[in-house]
Amino acid sequence: MATANDKEPPVGLVIVTHGGSGECLLAAAEGLVGPLAASAAVSVALNDPFDEIVRRVGQACDSVDAGAGLLILADVHGSSPFRACLSMLDGTRAVEIVCGINLPMLIKLATVDRRGQRPVEVAEIIKEVGKRSIRLGSELTGKLGVPREERH
Amino acid sequence: MATANDKEPPVGLVIVTHGGSGECLLAAAEGLVGPLAASAAVSVALNDPFDEIVRRVGQACDSVDAGAGLLILADVHGSSPFRACLSMLDGTRAVEIVCGINLPMLIKLATVDRRGQRPVEVAEIIKEVGKRSIRLGSELTGKLGVPREERH
Repeated sequence: MATANDKEPPVGLVIVTHGGSGECLLAAAEGLVGPLAASAAVSVALNDPFDEIVRRVGQACDSVDAGAGLLILADVHGSSPFRACLSMLDGTRAVEIVCGINLPMLIKLATVDRRGQRPVEVAEIIKEVGKRSIRLGSELTGKLGVPREERH
Repeated sequence: MATANDKEPPVGLVIVTHGGSGECLLAAAEGLVGPLAASAAVSVALNDPFDEIVRRVGQACDSVDAGAGLLILADVHGSSPFRACLSMLDGTRAVEIVCGINLPMLIKLATVDRRGQRPVEVAEIIKEVGKRSIRLGSELTGKLGVPREERH
């Protein structure tokens, strides 16, 4: 783990989603665990022109990047919002993208120290937290959700 | 794979989230790939009483279960909404829960046939799709998001 310095800026966080789920996820994480510093959400509508999406994602990136680079969380890869995120990899700053955003990633981001780390290092942590958070209720509880008559 | 019969009902789908992200995710998936049959979303506010959450989740479950049981997607395990989902495992019907909901899961659910399968079978598919969808931009594109001056 890199040593964090209070004076170093945190890696900025930009969330890009189809519709308003990014803003909802950010609000939910902040309600559960407290504020996420240097974060912004961009909601994309299905028929937003691509140039407009790129402009808004770029604006969000500028608003949260204080020199430590950016982590961008996207909801799904391969769509216009994701391609707009890719266009941020233009060599002007350090950026990593994580696709498949879910709430446990944001809860982790509220507690992990984003100072003194590179975006790709934060991204690797968040990717693993996101993957590990996807579990079946029966794995977590040992309770099988089957009707009584099928139990034996 | 079980044989689907047009006359069999699909496994019902209930999405339970902190705040409105579930509704947003459902709308986003439907906008991208078309309607999700037999689905409902429950938004939970931070100070909703637990009994009230259970009542609303139960109501959503009743509204989409036509006899094939239920898949419940929750945003994170361990919180009140998740405990409300667990209370649906009461032995009255087949239920499986997947935690860590993300958009790729719902996109998959719009295309997978939920008829002729048990909830746990659909849940296993969705869990794997969700985990696989969480990837770094650099893995997907081979593009490293580092500033030009750091490339060598």
